[in-house]
This record gives sequence, C-alpha cells and structure tokens, in this order.
Amino acid sequence: MNGTTGQTSYQDRVWSVAEHLDDVLAKIRPLEPIELQLLDAQGCVLVEDITVPVSLPPFDNSSMDGYAVRVADVAGATEEFPAALTVIGDVAAGSGELPSVGPGEAARIMTGAPVPPGAEAVVPVEWTDGGTGEGPAAGMRAHSSAPQDAAGEVRVHRPVAERAHIRARGSDVSAGEPALRAGTVLGPSQIGLLAAIGRGTVRVRPRPRVVVMSTGSELIQPGEALGPGQIHDSNSFQLTAAARDAGAIAYRVGAVADDPETLRSTLEDQLIRADILVTSGGVSVGAYDVVKETLTALSADPDGGRTSVTGQVEFRKLAMQPGKPQGFGLIGPDRTPILALPGNPVSSYVSFEIFVRPAIRTLMGLAEVHRATTAAECTDAIASSPRGKRQFLRGSYDADTGRVTPVGGTGSHLIKALAHANALIIVPEDTTEVAAGTTVDVVLLG
Amino acid sequence: MNGTTGQTSYQDRVWSVAEHLDDVLAKIRPLEPIELQLLDAQGCVLVEDITVPVSLPPFDNSSMDGYAVRVADVAGATEEFPAALTVIGDVAAGSGELPSVGPGEAARIMTGAPVPPGAEAVVPVEWTDGGTGEGPAAGMRAHSSAPQDAAGEVRVHRPVAERAHIRARGSDVSAGEPALRAGTVLGPSQIGLLAAIGRGTVRVRPRPRVVVMSTGSELIQPGEALGPGQIHDSNSFQLTAAARDAGAIAYRVGAVADDPETLRSTLEDQLIRADILVTSGGVSVGAYDVVKETLTALSADPDGGRTSVTGQVEFRKLAMQPGKPQGFGLIGPDRTPILALPGNPVSSYVSFEIFVRPAIRTLMGLAEVHRATTAAECTDAIASSPRGKRQFLRGSYDADTGRVTPVGGTGSHLIKALAHANALIIVPEDTTEVAAGTTVDVVLLG
Repeated sequence: MNGTTGQTSYQDRVWSVAEHLDDVLAKIRPLEPIELQLLDAQGCVLVEDITVPVSLPPFDNSSMDGYAVRVADVAGATEEFPAALTVIGDVAAGSGELPSVGPGEAARIMTGAPVPPGAEAVVPVEWTDGGTGEGPAAGMRAHSSAPQDAAGEVRVHRPVAERAHIRARGSDVSAGEPALRAGTVLGPSQIGLLAAIGRGTVRVRPRPRVVVMSTGSELIQPGEALGPGQIHDSNSFQLTAAARDAGAIAYRVGAVADDPETLRSTLEDQLIRADILVTSGGVSVGAYDVVKETLTALSADPDGGRTSVTGQVEFRKLAMQPGKPQGFGLIGPDRTPILALPGNPVSSYVSFEIFVRPAIRTLMGLAEVHRATTAAECTDAIASSPRGKRQFLRGSYDADTGRVTPVGGTGSHLIKALAHANALIIVPEDTTEVAAGTTVDVVLLG
Repeated sequence: MNGTTGQTSYQDRVWSVAEHLDDVLAKIRPLEPIELQLLDAQGCVLVEDITVPVSLPPFDNSSMDGYAVRVADVAGATEEFPAALTVIGDVAAGSGELPSVGPGEAARIMTGAPVPPGAEAVVPVEWTDGGTGEGPAAGMRAHSSAPQDAAGEVRVHRPVAERAHIRARGSDVSAGEPALRAGTVLGPSQIGLLAAIGRGTVRVRPRPRVVVMSTGSELIQPGEALGPGQIHDSNSFQLTAAARDAGAIAYRVGAVADDPETLRSTLEDQLIRADILVTSGGVSVGAYDVVKETLTALSADPDGGRTSVTGQVEFRKLAMQPGKPQGFGLIGPDRTPILALPGNPVSSYVSFEIFVRPAIRTLMGLAEVHRATTAAECTDAIASSPRGKRQFLRGSYDADTGRVTPVGGTGSHLIKALAHANALIIVPEDTTEVAAGTTVDVVLLG
C-alpha cells in the first residue's frame, strides 16, 4: 500500500488454503433465526427442540373400512352362520358426534374415523356382507349412491379380537416425546411430522441471501453481440447457480464495469439485501483491479465521505492453483461478509466451491459445511503440479469403479472441461507429480 | 362397479409394484421443451446439442498483468542490465482500440486484455520495475492514483519467449466444437459454459408443475385447533416438499373435504396449472372414499354434464405394503396424469417416492428417474413380512459401514419414524422374514 514503490495491497505472507478457509469461517456467524411457514422452511436448519404437544393419533381410530362392534356379538361367527347386527349409522373420518354401539349393534366405520363408544373392535368390511344381504363384500358402496347401507343389517362372517383394527391414541407419538432436535435439516418427512403434530410455523435459520456480481469492462451479457476485446459474462451466472445449489437465495447483479465509483455505489445499493456478497474479478495486481482498489480503500479511508460503505477487506495471495488472489472481509453496517474471487471462470468457480459454499452453509447453521471428499484412483498421470501450492484439477469421477480421470489440462481458463467434470482432484502442496494409478483425494461436486 | 353387489371399482387383479410403475411411466411423456433464460433453466434437461458459435477466447489475450513486448527487445535482459522500453499506453480488459507496439516499445497490459498488434509476448509486471525506476514491482499501481505509469519508461529484468503469457484465440474451445449434448442436466458449470459461449437463453424441458391436494373431512390446517375426530393435514405439506425435492414446481392445495362436488370442482380449477396431479386419501374401500368415487365416475360417465373434467382413472390393489390402494389415470383436455395415493402419511410418502417421483422426473426428461438403491447389511431382524407383498420399511442407512437399521415398526402410521429415516428397506415379495446380518436392498432417500 505504498503508492510510490509499486507495492500492492497484498500482504507478503502467502496463506495456505486451510488458513484462508479457517479465517473466513471463523469470522462468519450463522444467521439469526426467524419463524417461517412450514413450506418456506424446507432445507433450513431447525433451531429449537420440538416436542410433541398432543399424542398422535389424538384418539382411538379405525385402521380399516369396516364395522365397529362389540366382541361378544361376533364370537363364533362364520360365513355359514354369520352374526347379524343392526347398523346404527356411519362414522366417517372427521366425525365429531359419535353414535353409541350397544349390544347387537354395529356402526359402519371408515379408516381414520374415531372408534365410537361401546365398540371394542373393528371388523373389516371384507369379513362381512357389507349390508347387502349377499356374499362377502369387496368394499363398501359409496354413501352417495347407496345411503341405505348406513342403516339396516350387516352380516359378519368372522369373529374379532378385542382392539383389533384399532389404532390406539398415542400409538404413533406421545405428548411430551421429542419429535425433532435443534440442528435438524427440514426435508419432506420432517415437514410432514411437524404438520402432523400441528405446527404451522417453525423457527429456523433462513436461507442466506447471496448477491453475486462480476466485474470487468470487457464483460457483455450473453445473447448480446461482442465488440473487439469483449467476452461474455459467465461468472455471474455460474456463481449465482452455484449459490442456489449451496442452498442460498441468490441475486445476480449484472457485470459491473472497472470503475471504482460504479463499484462502490453498486455495493452500497446491494448491501441492503445481502447476507453475503460475492464478486469475481479485479483482485490481482493490474492497474484496473478496481475490486481490490475499492475494497482496500474502505479500510484505509473509512471516512473518506465518498460512500457510506465502511469495512475491512484484506487481499491475500494463496498457495493455491487456480485461485491465488483472494479478498475477504466484512463491510457495511451489518459487517456483511464479502468474498472477492479472481475473475477467471474456472478460478472463480473453484474458489466458490472451496471458500464461498462453506461460508453460505455456515450462515445456514449447517453442521457439515463442506463438500464430501473421497479417495479415488487417478487413471492418468498428472505430469506436473507446482511445489508449495494446492492444486485443484477438474476430474470425472466414477463412483462404481472408484476412479477419477482428469479432464482438460491445468489451464485455469478451461471452462469447457469444467462443464464436463463432476469432481475436483486435489494435488497437495508437497506433491509435484502424480503417477497413473495413484490414490488421490477428490471433492465431489455432486 | 356394480352398484347392487357392493363390488368396488377395483379390478380383481393384484398388480405388482413393478407392473404399476411400468404402466405409469409408459403413459407419461416428457414435457414439451421451451426456451428459458439461462438461470431459469437450472436443473432442467437440455433438448438441443449445443455447438460453440465462436472460438474462446475470441482473441489472443494476456494471461498476466504485465507488459506486451517484442521478444527481441528484451533478449538478454537481467535485473542488473534491464531492457528499458517506452510505455506507449495501457491495454485494459475490454479495450477496443489497440496501440501498435513498435521496436523499443511496450504496452502495459492487463489480464484478459487483447494482445496489441506488434507485441509477441507478455512480460509479467513482477519481472519489471513497474515503471517506477526502482526495484522489481510486486504489482501495478492503480491507474486512478498513478496515471503516469501508463506512459514513461519500464525496465524489464528478464527475457521472454515468443507467445509467453498469451492465451491463444480458440485455446479453450473452437468454433463448431460440441459444447453440451442434448440430455445434459444444467448445473452451475454447464450454465457457466453456455453463458461463456454467448447463449442468453436455452431450450430445455421445463420443471413440471405439480398440484398436490390431500382429501379428508377430518383434516385441519396445522396451527389451527383440533375438534373431536380431527387431525392435522400433513400429507399436502410432505408431498409438496417431496415434489420440490424431485425437481418440480409444486403447488399445495389445502385439504379438500370428502365431498364429490368439491373435489370435482377443485380438480377442474387446478387442471389449468398442473402438469401432474397428486392426491392423497379417499382411494380405499370405504363409503366416503370420494377420490375413487369421483375419478372412477369420470370414466363411467364422461358426459354426465356435471363437470368439464373427463378422463380415465383406474384404481388398483397393489402387492405392496404400505401403499396397497393406488389410483392412476389421465384426465382433462391435456390428459394430465393423476396419481391418487392412499391417505395414510407413511403410505402416501412411500407411494410418492416409488411412483410419483419417477413420474415427475420422466416429465423432466431425465435419463435416470429412480432413486439410487444400494445393497446394505441389515443390522436387525425383520420378524415378519407379508408373503406376496413388496414391503418398504423405514431405515437408517450408514454409508460408512454399509449397514441399515430399521426405524419404527411396520405400522404404516409411524410418521415419526419416517422423519428419522434416510432410506427405505425393500423386503421382496417372496421374503417373509429377514435375519439380522442379511443383505437387503435399500432405496436412498438423501
């Protein structure tokens, strides 16, 4: 930061991947919990232990479509010598007022309907004539077309044990029992359980809102024609998609030109809706690396009056390939984390996977913030890897064989190879070449 | 379907799980493709082969921040005896008009900027004095604070080979080369590649719109108080979340009462926004199973005049536990698939996973529509499983040990156990008990 010697704002220290990652995660706190409607909480982390407020099922109910009876009334019944009972009415699911079943009586009952007083068991309809006076029924006739079946007489062909085909109150869960623990990620079945125990809303950490912007005066929106020296912006699309994939709500800001004033005012605008900011480009040692220039100035000149954005952002050299230049800090009134990634598409994507994704998942409050890694046999040799740097190569991993094949070369601009990779092959700092058949660690991009 | 004998609309035939699944999938076609904005196409299946329209990078450009030079001008340069070159200006990324580099001249150039005419290589700034007249530079000074560095003189400390630090036009991908094949699922890196080659929109099969409704007069919205005989609706929440999880856009319709007219008019309303309909409940042999009653009537009485909904829906008994009663058919003017699942929460969820999820993924055009299954060692005995039925038990699978432990019992109402399961243990039709330590197949719900 000496304006007269050509020194940059980089620290001289070279950070390892692990050191930078640890520093990022140490400065990021999970988001404050909020109460959300059940379906809005899908994929979120629960922050409260949930206990069952009322036993389920909340009342004894029938597990079959059939007849609620007294056991003694059907003792010894057979198809040849059926027990004939008087049908006193229907008990449908949701019935509030229940008939009382006396001796010699039966109530026609539906699956899930409350067992009426006096009844001791349920006889499935298939064990009866269904009130038709004919042979064994395959089912009930619809009430709308045969209302007479809710009265009259039913012949029961088999005896039944006490409590048979009755689901007892509390047999699924009892009041006061733990349902879900804080820290649980809410998927379909957890949401189903919460609904079943009557929870309409739930307290979770919300999905982080990620603002993604790419920077570079050469960037043109895809679909528009390129002029001389221009390329299409791909980073803001790729990183926005990757942020969603990590579980975030992602906002893509169009490419920002390499102009400090524009960048500052864009940051100022975007801070309001960001739980974390991700930029790509402008972090290296060039004369127009405005991300580095602008964000470094926030620390050096927090009170310059040109902007309300304050903060402390540090730019580092990492022992990493791709992804050597990285910026990280906290800016604005809420000390919002910002990760400034290099501009090359493959560099920015690898940096996202290694640093931003864990940061997003830390904001979500997840216990496991990293991608799964696995050991794999590398099918091809990796001719050379820079000593002292952790290299991430694109790979195609086959789970069935446990093998990984490098795709594309080491060039950090091979965006096509990336689109055909499903893993990152890690070549550690002290490894300079990998022989074919060697076991390597791979990050699964799944 | 004989109103006088108590026969139901079930066919007598019992379908195997595989037969029902085959029938469902045979009748469902992938959705018609549409052109979507890139980020709206995330997770969708591409239907066109994409070729690269213009080589990438589209022009020779610098891979470093440095100076574009002629090789002969820096031959033999050392720190002690540097080559002094006249800086003729800056070439920033996005520069359209380029200076011509003559003998004894250098253009200061930024990463990604086009190599100007006359230049043969790029010297990294770290191999120069950065125009400061001092020692080796760590980087460039920002143009905004040191505009003089775009002119004057630079001292180069090392020679450079021809084409060094230049990324050649087309070195990433060449025009006409295949980029992505039809059938590719668009994730972050595929979206990045499409953006990079200039595609603003892409032709994909859209996400299916799934309308989910539960039926049952006993169902109350979670968060509201229960009256006698009532329970909270959980299926519509669980299945909506599961539909999203499968990749669909899901609409939850509140629980519908067991009334044919209400169900018919709800179906009629919802058809307009549905690519597939999923109901739960009302499919068994009871007198108020209005889903079966109403949907069966569509086939029997397509011209009854009570509704504009027509179609053919068949109700079946499956050799499956849970999930025995299932309805499936095509309704409405677009022959929209409808899957009518049983009402029990665990039954409906298992049915969703086994039948609806593959149906949704078939609509999406995915090649692999089924959940992954794996063989696992079952830690506990499964005492009894009904002969002739395929049973699905909730299990907790540990990928590290390759073992699965049944959770909860066989009762199909154990919604709490489901919320603590991550797999379904399959007990095949001809297996009636499983000894501890036996290898079983499990469906991974992750």
